[in-house]
Amino acid sequence: MQLQTATWQEVESYLKRSSAIIIPIGSTEQHGPNGFIGTDALCPQVLAQGIGETTGALVAPTISVGMAQHHLGFAGSITLRPSTLMAVVQDQVNSLARHGFDRIYFLNGHGGNIATVTAAFSEIYAESSLGTAGHNRPALRCKLRNWWDAEGVAEVSKRRFGAAEGSHATCSEVSLTYFAYPDFVKKVAMTPEIAPNGPIYDADDYRRRFADGRIGSNPALASVEAGEELYNVAVRDLSRDYLAFAQED
Amino acid sequence: MQLQTATWQEVESYLKRSSAIIIPIGSTEQHGPNGFIGTDALCPQVLAQGIGETTGALVAPTISVGMAQHHLGFAGSITLRPSTLMAVVQDQVNSLARHGFDRIYFLNGHGGNIATVTAAFSEIYAESSLGTAGHNRPALRCKLRNWWDAEGVAEVSKRRFGAAEGSHATCSEVSLTYFAYPDFVKKVAMTPEIAPNGPIYDADDYRRRFADGRIGSNPALASVEAGEELYNVAVRDLSRDYLAFAQED
Amino acid sequence: MQLQTATWQEVESYLKRSSAIIIPIGSTEQHGPNGFIGTDALCPQVLAQGIGETTGALVAPTISVGMAQHHLGFAGSITLRPSTLMAVVQDQVNSLARHGFDRIYFLNGHGGNIATVTAAFSEIYAESSLGTAGHNRPALRCKLRNWWDAEGVAEVSKRRFGAAEGSHATCSEVSLTYFAYPDFVKKVAMTPEIAPNGPIYDADDYRRRFADGRIGSNPALASVEAGEELYNVAVRDLSRDYLAFAQED
Amino acid sequence: MQLQTATWQEVESYLKRSSAIIIPIGSTEQHGPNGFIGTDALCPQVLAQGIGETTGALVAPTISVGMAQHHLGFAGSITLRPSTLMAVVQDQVNSLARHGFDRIYFLNGHGGNIATVTAAFSEIYAESSLGTAGHNRPALRCKLRNWWDAEGVAEVSKRRFGAAEGSHATCSEVSLTYFAYPDFVKKVAMTPEIAPNGPIYDADDYRRRFADGRIGSNPALASVEAGEELYNVAVRDLSRDYLAFAQED
Amino acid sequence: MQLQTATWQEVESYLKRSSAIIIPIGSTEQHGPNGFIGTDALCPQVLAQGIGETTGALVAPTISVGMAQHHLGFAGSITLRPSTLMAVVQDQVNSLARHGFDRIYFLNGHGGNIATVTAAFSEIYAESSLGTAGHNRPALRCKLRNWWDAEGVAEVSKRRFGAAEGSHATCSEVSLTYFAYPDFVKKVAMTPEIAPNGPIYDADDYRRRFADGRIGSNPALASVEAGEELYNVAVRDLSRDYLAFAQED
Amino acid sequence: MQLQTATWQEVESYLKRSSAIIIPIGSTEQHGPNGFIGTDALCPQVLAQGIGETTGALVAPTISVGMAQHHLGFAGSITLRPSTLMAVVQDQVNSLARHGFDRIYFLNGHGGNIATVTAAFSEIYAESSLGTAGHNRPALRCKLRNWWDAEGVAEVSKRRFGAAEGSHATCSEVSLTYFAYPDFVKKVAMTPEIAPNGPIYDADDYRRRFADGRIGSNPALASVEAGEELYNVAVRDLSRDYLAFAQED
Repeated sequence: MQLQTATWQEVESYLKRSSAIIIPIGSTEQHGPNGFIGTDALCPQVLAQGIGETTGALVAPTISVGMAQHHLGFAGSITLRPSTLMAVVQDQVNSLARHGFDRIYFLNGHGGNIATVTAAFSEIYAESSLGTAGHNRPALRCKLRNWWDAEGVAEVSKRRFGAAEGSHATCSEVSLTYFAYPDFVKKVAMTPEIAPNGPIYDADDYRRRFADGRIGSNPALASVEAGEELYNVAVRDLSRDYLAFAQED
Repeated sequence: MQLQTATWQEVESYLKRSSAIIIPIGSTEQHGPNGFIGTDALCPQVLAQGIGETTGALVAPTISVGMAQHHLGFAGSITLRPSTLMAVVQDQVNSLARHGFDRIYFLNGHGGNIATVTAAFSEIYAESSLGTAGHNRPALRCKLRNWWDAEGVAEVSKRRFGAAEGSHATCSEVSLTYFAYPDFVKKVAMTPEIAPNGPIYDADDYRRRFADGRIGSNPALASVEAGEELYNVAVRDLSRDYLAFAQED
Repeated sequence: MQLQTATWQEVESYLKRSSAIIIPIGSTEQHGPNGFIGTDALCPQVLAQGIGETTGALVAPTISVGMAQHHLGFAGSITLRPSTLMAVVQDQVNSLARHGFDRIYFLNGHGGNIATVTAAFSEIYAESSLGTAGHNRPALRCKLRNWWDAEGVAEVSKRRFGAAEGSHATCSEVSLTYFAYPDFVKKVAMTPEIAPNGPIYDADDYRRRFADGRIGSNPALASVEAGEELYNVAVRDLSRDYLAFAQED
Repeated sequence: MQLQTATWQEVESYLKRSSAIIIPIGSTEQHGPNGFIGTDALCPQVLAQGIGETTGALVAPTISVGMAQHHLGFAGSITLRPSTLMAVVQDQVNSLARHGFDRIYFLNGHGGNIATVTAAFSEIYAESSLGTAGHNRPALRCKLRNWWDAEGVAEVSKRRFGAAEGSHATCSEVSLTYFAYPDFVKKVAMTPEIAPNGPIYDADDYRRRFADGRIGSNPALASVEAGEELYNVAVRDLSRDYLAFAQED
Repeated sequence: MQLQTATWQEVESYLKRSSAIIIPIGSTEQHGPNGFIGTDALCPQVLAQGIGETTGALVAPTISVGMAQHHLGFAGSITLRPSTLMAVVQDQVNSLARHGFDRIYFLNGHGGNIATVTAAFSEIYAESSLGTAGHNRPALRCKLRNWWDAEGVAEVSKRRFGAAEGSHATCSEVSLTYFAYPDFVKKVAMTPEIAPNGPIYDADDYRRRFADGRIGSNPALASVEAGEELYNVAVRDLSRDYLAFAQED
Repeated sequence: MQLQTATWQEVESYLKRSSAIIIPIGSTEQHGPNGFIGTDALCPQVLAQGIGETTGALVAPTISVGMAQHHLGFAGSITLRPSTLMAVVQDQVNSLARHGFDRIYFLNGHGGNIATVTAAFSEIYAESSLGTAGHNRPALRCKLRNWWDAEGVAEVSKRRFGAAEGSHATCSEVSLTYFAYPDFVKKVAMTPEIAPNGPIYDADDYRRRFADGRIGSNPALASVEAGEELYNVAVRDLSRDYLAFAQED
């Protein structure tokens, strides 16, 4: 069930059978010459819908803008500062906690979010851990799950793309968005075929190292077909992961 | 053009002909017995897509969660604190300013956002106004436009719904989402037919005053047809407003 | 009763008969060639004193510096960032709540404060709305009332000044301060007679559009007599409004 | 010259002969059985007016609410958190710096403000000290001066009140406000005559130690005559101190 | 060279040959029945001293308190909220940047710091990435290196402790502190021998899952000898890693 | 007992006999031509260890970086902004309060910390004072004690150094660190012998006034012997002060 098209009474009913919810979280940032700026938001959004259909989970609206400061050298990239993204995560979790949700599952599409969202969880927990008494909300549990860490995904990526998978603007994520938005598939030749690798510091340094935005990948290999296979594998394995979290002791 | 399915090179090209962009901003909050929780986000999102098609404007991803503290008494409502939403607006505007955007048009779907977003604009301007020298980014201009303030909208609302339009979970906004998502149209009888009016304070007080979440409306009157008329009028008038802002001296 | 010249025991007695208080809030900013920099603070301060005498209300000290970033292009203007003003409002309201005040009536003299103070109220309410349990302070209600929105004021302004009233450095507000501080009446010719209108962005843009600081007004028409009439009408109507709020269910 | 009744053009002229300004800063807090809640704000406000007349200094509006958390156990006391007061001081100083003011003289009426305002100065300086380059505003200097530390004041206090002067709700400060507001002089017997002394922690602890709010004083000895003498001595000595700061190399 | 016992002139000389510096960062938190509360701070502190001697690196004072909210259920544990630790890292890095340091190497002793410190780096970079122009400080690079990730360490841990190494209060970290502080070696029997594993949420949940504080380890196996071997391997490999970073293009 | 080499069970035992703890707090900043950059942190650290041995007090790890913005003109100085240091103090105190500590004794080595740490205490107390109900943690008391204010210290300083003691890079503090770290004693001639005095504003101004960093001192007179005498006197007197605070009613 999508929260956005539900009524509050429907959510009230849902809470009688589950206190878990999925929040897709991504980023709005360059993804090289043929990847969408919204890649990292669209991937978890599409997968969360699939997981929702498979498991009956409630799916909140996607947090589309994440921590992308290192991509600001490329037009169209938008970032939240880590401190801002932490506040966003805190407020959304605390809002849901008021209603009785206590298993908050963030399905993540962007490596750059991991540190900040993990820190945000600690900031939320610290409200309780540093508190002294008397609050009576249920003990919250937050989990961040990267969609590409779903069990079967690595096998598909490796089999199909091998060393060309890369770590930014990867073949897999571009494929997944092509499967979801086939009208926007873009054919672009890559030079060099496989992009360089290197460390990530600020936006100017990033642009200097990675001229067209990719890191280590050749997303010219991306395809709708690969995206479909990835989608099916990821939805299957993430559904299992979500249910385990929702029912965790 | 949707930013989410564009590449950074396409945005770079866009910036050669325009430095304006639309950011839809809404809320995730109860909208009475037959309105979607995402109503306030879906309305500007749908309209922004129409304005984008009409004018060629670039459309950023929707800010789906806004300032909705007064709705937290109803399951599924999610809020950002005003201070958090201000930081979100600041970071997104400053990100876009780095790329050369200097006309940021927020298309708003939620009355509760007006104060906070307006304050955020002042916070952004204050960075320059309190600064002392030397920054060389273009002078930024931010505008918040409520979709329901588009010129022709009031006439349609009044003609079709009269006194039943109300001010929260209005007939017009519910109609607009029904037009956009006809599969989710919900038939619910309202008791009383027209909801009460009153002031807004915190969430507990809101729930006490407005038992099913509506204020002053009878959204049982909402329809796909009304939504379509509202959509056409609003896209037409907001497109004109957007272009005037984009070209303002 | 003025809080500043009362003792704490007198306030303790007051609280036995009322839990409402008036906080005048203004700004310290240019008001054109013949208006005081303190206009927006002095107007609500003077009126609050009158309302206090009429109704017996307790009047807190004036918040003299508000949100005036757009006036920083003119010497002597002082602003708080919106985030700072929000913190000021929060702390003052929470201080008063500890004593048992639960109807906080902000009498406002500056349009530029409206968004920020309204956002501050939501920030205060969000402390409760996002909280989870157990707090036992009385439900707070905050109200912002612009003095110029008092019922009878528009009639006087229109009758006396018509189109020359304007929207910044208005004839009415200058008149009201002249009535309160007749020793400081200033005779200055205005060029052009009626100042231009336009949108408000940052301080540099403001100065470019509004060369002497006024917007749409000809405050050369201001007078002590007009100020006296405005004072009497405003005190009468605002007293009624304050009492209604203090006794609201 | 009072900033509140000046025009921006008058401030522009002032800046041609001086870049210094006085900001009175106080507190709104209980001052025992016969002292005004506004004592700490009214003292520097009244003295600053005198210094302004003596030296020609420009006087900004009083910051009436300061850091008074320890007084919150007594009705009517209002505090800013230290972090809030720091932001207020920062914004006001940065506003003035934009206009070219670079000697900001805070005339203080409240011991509880000293730490916070001093920390605020460091926060302001840190903006420059931690900055890396290129800002071109004049080097700012901020000074906090407690009115009771004016050279001649201690002699008067000691001669007139001796051991009954105390450290909160002192005979001197109550006298000074009685001189300024003789209509509000209050006759109250004190029990015990001289209040106890002790350390200051939070508001509950303060109330437990100091039952009527005073610390170490017997303000029943306060008088209009003593206030007048203190006023004259303080204005004379603080004027000299202000001028030395304004002209410091 | 230790910064704490150097003079500023010695640092000025150092900066002529290197712009890199090591900051040990740890935590103050329970480490089970026989581990020191300071384990995570002492390990990087001791190793940094060794690396400093090996490479000539300048070593800043240790950040002894880190992000340890999940340990607050055990007496003596002290945490910074993630937002606080981020501010600490920012200020220290910006201070060093003013002097010309541009390779800041954080040697980390605590897994719970990783997310927060990584987020802090992004917050620092975002100051530049979101900035618009003109700042001229050198491009900063920050690196976080966990001492236990030094190349040779895993081999030693595995050979000596195997499955008893665990992930909190590990045999290796306890050994390293025993080597450094042999006077404080504590003999305590563990029940069960190997502690349980599990996820980490807030402090109450942590205490419920991990009764004596350990996770997955049997630190009764820790020894001074093992500590010495770990020390030698870690200093050797981390010295190489530090130099590579200091000289990175 | 040093917290860093204790186990959590040992702290749990300690809490049965005392709820007081010592936190040494200093700074990392230039101390002239022959003083250590860590002087202000090492002095309270060394003394706290002595007090701990004398009284049995538990000693937390030193806060080594304090508020030193004015020293940033000299290489190696590191500062926290006041707002950051306040957050550090808050979090550490709140962590300790959770365990039942309610007498937090900050032994301070740096004049520049006084305002900020004092403001931090008020920020901590304000959490309670502004709170409305129900929290049940013990009433906290925080005390800041400058080591040089110990009763006997002034006598030693005056007798040994007279007018050459100064106020930054003083003979006494340099002596104390020489006693603690005799291997690092530095022989440097001072020009002029006694450094100038003056006010403190930002870092650039400081460097302009105080060319080698000292204020009013001739630390060439510092010696290990003087350090030892100071150590003995200070430990003796501060131990008495600590115990009085720990047992205060």
